[in-house]
Amino acid sequence: FPATIATTLTSSLLYKPASIRQLAVAASQITKSILFPSNQSTGRIRIMSSDAAVVSEAPVVAQPDDGDKSKQQQRPQQRQKLVLKVPKGMHDRPPVQMSVREDVLQKIVRVFKSHDAECLETPGAELKEVLTGKYGEDSKLIYDICDQGGELLSLRYDLTVPFARYVAMNKLQSMRRYQIGPVYRRDQPAMTRGRYREFYQCDFDIAGESEPMLADSECVLILTEVLSGLGFSNYTVRVNHRLLLDGIFQCCGVSEALFRPICSAVDKLDKCSWDEVAKEMSDKGLADEPIERIRQLVLTPRGSADLVDQLRENPALKGNAMVTQALDDMSRLFRYLGLLGCPDQVRFDLSLARGLDYYTGLIYEAVLEPTPDCNVTVGSVAGGGRYDKLVGMFTKKDIPCVGLSIGVERLFTILEQMHKAKEQKIRTTATQVYVCSAQKNLLEERLRLCGQLWCAGLPAAHSLRSNPKLLTQFQYCEDTGVPIALIIGESELRDNKVKLRCIASRKERLVDRDSCVDEVRAELASLAAAQQKTEQ
Amino acid sequence: FPATIATTLTSSLLYKPASIRQLAVAASQITKSILFPSNQSTGRIRIMSSDAAVVSEAPVVAQPDDGDKSKQQQRPQQRQKLVLKVPKGMHDRPPVQMSVREDVLQKIVRVFKSHDAECLETPGAELKEVLTGKYGEDSKLIYDICDQGGELLSLRYDLTVPFARYVAMNKLQSMRRYQIGPVYRRDQPAMTRGRYREFYQCDFDIAGESEPMLADSECVLILTEVLSGLGFSNYTVRVNHRLLLDGIFQCCGVSEALFRPICSAVDKLDKCSWDEVAKEMSDKGLADEPIERIRQLVLTPRGSADLVDQLRENPALKGNAMVTQALDDMSRLFRYLGLLGCPDQVRFDLSLARGLDYYTGLIYEAVLEPTPDCNVTVGSVAGGGRYDKLVGMFTKKDIPCVGLSIGVERLFTILEQMHKAKEQKIRTTATQVYVCSAQKNLLEERLRLCGQLWCAGLPAAHSLRSNPKLLTQFQYCEDTGVPIALIIGESELRDNKVKLRCIASRKERLVDRDSCVDEVRAELASLAAAQQKTEQ
Repeated sequence: FPATIATTLTSSLLYKPASIRQLAVAASQITKSILFPSNQSTGRIRIMSSDAAVVSEAPVVAQPDDGDKSKQQQRPQQRQKLVLKVPKGMHDRPPVQMSVREDVLQKIVRVFKSHDAECLETPGAELKEVLTGKYGEDSKLIYDICDQGGELLSLRYDLTVPFARYVAMNKLQSMRRYQIGPVYRRDQPAMTRGRYREFYQCDFDIAGESEPMLADSECVLILTEVLSGLGFSNYTVRVNHRLLLDGIFQCCGVSEALFRPICSAVDKLDKCSWDEVAKEMSDKGLADEPIERIRQLVLTPRGSADLVDQLRENPALKGNAMVTQALDDMSRLFRYLGLLGCPDQVRFDLSLARGLDYYTGLIYEAVLEPTPDCNVTVGSVAGGGRYDKLVGMFTKKDIPCVGLSIGVERLFTILEQMHKAKEQKIRTTATQVYVCSAQKNLLEERLRLCGQLWCAGLPAAHSLRSNPKLLTQFQYCEDTGVPIALIIGESELRDNKVKLRCIASRKERLVDRDSCVDEVRAELASLAAAQQKTEQ
Repeated sequence: FPATIATTLTSSLLYKPASIRQLAVAASQITKSILFPSNQSTGRIRIMSSDAAVVSEAPVVAQPDDGDKSKQQQRPQQRQKLVLKVPKGMHDRPPVQMSVREDVLQKIVRVFKSHDAECLETPGAELKEVLTGKYGEDSKLIYDICDQGGELLSLRYDLTVPFARYVAMNKLQSMRRYQIGPVYRRDQPAMTRGRYREFYQCDFDIAGESEPMLADSECVLILTEVLSGLGFSNYTVRVNHRLLLDGIFQCCGVSEALFRPICSAVDKLDKCSWDEVAKEMSDKGLADEPIERIRQLVLTPRGSADLVDQLRENPALKGNAMVTQALDDMSRLFRYLGLLGCPDQVRFDLSLARGLDYYTGLIYEAVLEPTPDCNVTVGSVAGGGRYDKLVGMFTKKDIPCVGLSIGVERLFTILEQMHKAKEQKIRTTATQVYVCSAQKNLLEERLRLCGQLWCAGLPAAHSLRSNPKLLTQFQYCEDTGVPIALIIGESELRDNKVKLRCIASRKERLVDRDSCVDEVRAELASLAAAQQKTEQ
């Protein structure tokens, strides 16, 4: 735990005004175990400025080690007032949210599975060095785990780099996999817009050789299938090509070393004005003339296959090898999307750049437009692209990859608001039968009946009070959406019967106790049939 | 990021032999931003021993800040040889494992849902102080996250404490919830026995007032339903009562302050011999006589309702209030379990203690016995109990709770070995149709057909090569279990037909191109019916 102390102190120094004295104390705690392993017990640490004047000095005192901490943690068993909250930018997901979530994730998985994908899960943490150098400017947002056991770990920042690590580690030639799980980014949270520090990603990736643009066009199709499958029609999939951007940069006179930094500036075009982006380019060392040339090429053109032809004819780009290859890819993409019957919501957009460093070819992003149902602007809800060099960063062998990632958190936010707007009531339990007692002292009979229902696999419940009121029990059914109640009373018991009540219609009938499981099943089936009829 | 540097260096100093020089360098990097905020640019840091002799000295050089790191991280884009591994005690879960997992988790969720439970999800991390003081001796196994943003965070250690925090934070009077997710413990991993540092827990809990033992007996029933539902018959659910243990300790002359430490020693009885446990008790300050009295009471008795009566008559325990209340609870438990039709695999076992500090009433644990199918000993696969004081540790108000946690990782290990023993082949994809080309240059036709199948919601796939061999395509179907192939050839194209091949029987027939989706559906239905017939 000296590491903990050091981290605590150094970070408090970074984020809050703090004295040099504190630092010296921290350093002394770091050093004690090294300086005084056993025989010595005191020393001093000094921090000195350039002219060798002592800025601060602190004693180093060796303390008994290890067992120490758990003792400290056992002590505060007495009640203490805690600030009750979750970590900044994270959130609990209560039952109503989880119901929406379960439905959304099931639909997404169904699409992924219909495209021949296997499921993979990688750990929530990776060795820090696995993540290092993969995310460009965003690397500073990675969460590190305190080194308590010899390895430097980080929480995963996305699911793509762990996938590439898995492919490399297992020397795979090809794999189609999907993975769903939380990722962690120490970003400024904006919860209302669905931006969190812990959020779920749903990823689909294809690793391995493929005919040009074949895997890529399937990924774009999958994006549209997922969004249509969730009931959205108001989306656009923006597509662009990293090689085309690089070619444009080259034609505009940008040096190769600046390709990624300038690309990352272009990426901010959906959030910032051109002037802000131009200033970032200028700050990054680009002269005014290339900036203006980039503006002319990147800012306006949007289209589809027609834009490909238009760009082929652009004299400013003619003859550039990267541009030519990228445009060949783009025209193949549009041909394949047509053959696949992909919806006509794919737009070639030269201002799309994507933030992450690792893309090498086609890139894409799905954006939802506001609708009458839901006028929140959430921006990009999914994205992806080709990254042919990422696996090779772990081994000597490149494996071409292309994939997509769905930012479900934003979709949840939108769908919840749509449910609210429609005043749809969302069930959070699956209970089909509620066992009620009509008189006192029937708890044990309720237990017997519940046991019978559970044994038959029927989702059932009853009150945990010994003598609940009948109305309270019915109320529970109405509040939580349980469709059927089975009521036990003394007369029913005597006749070996039970009363079956349909909560919505309030109709009741007596059924034989021995056949009540079948009667409940029959009632549920007829309710489901009626429901389906009204929906049609 | 100085925090990172400090952590890196201090931990390498702690765990590996390292020089004082390194420390001084680390400290200098920590200090630079504080010592030389703008105007100064150099200085020195000295580490001195008690007699003021300089042990080490390092220059401090202020460097340009912030942008700095991302540049450093961009540089190593050139290939570097990394040690490719996952963090110690964690593991990738490849597709075959994920298939088994998906099946197991679905079955568990079905049981949880059939008991009226809502789904909740809490963040992967909690404020450190939320976890502090909840786990007793195990607290040292908690993973901390480096404080990079002002809050001290820890990875969650279980799902119970976050649930209690949620109930307290939302001032809930009652809730039945299930939660499934990974938890993190910095334990010594034993992967072959399914013991990991990151592992999944499946939790079901009931918070709120209930008739005595009503919620408790439902939890024990759920444990048996889950294990039976997964196909296990060779399990025992051991039950005991914390109040009974405390009462026994009191009768044996243990002081109250030692109740929890001695309880934690008893908990080791399933892994250690009595002599080892006795030594731990002695080390914790208990005299020989009470240790011997505990042995006599705790070590042998196992039974069910009969043991309750037997203990009521035990003169050593007679009149102890805690013992009396606990035995009342136990006898009610066995009566309720009988009414619920719970399988007769519940054993009252006085040597069961459970490791965690927070239990206050009934405790239980499910153990699998080795079978001919699977002779791995994995020990406890699930457990839980009543914890009436945990919510109150966050607020002033206690909310009684009882719950259970299933350690699915161990179940996965067992089920995988059972599958291996039976040589069952596990499918990892859901693909139902593979679109093949019989001649060259039919890639675009394949795309058209795949688009049609995907549009109809049929899980389909095809080769990503332009001209794959027909045999290779069939082989893919056999290897991955795809039941049907649709074959396009030039003659079929001419006649607007497509050849439907059943992979298992190798039977082929021509179908109309326009009705091929329906034909595939019909074929799949008849294959499923045949499959069901052979299984009966």
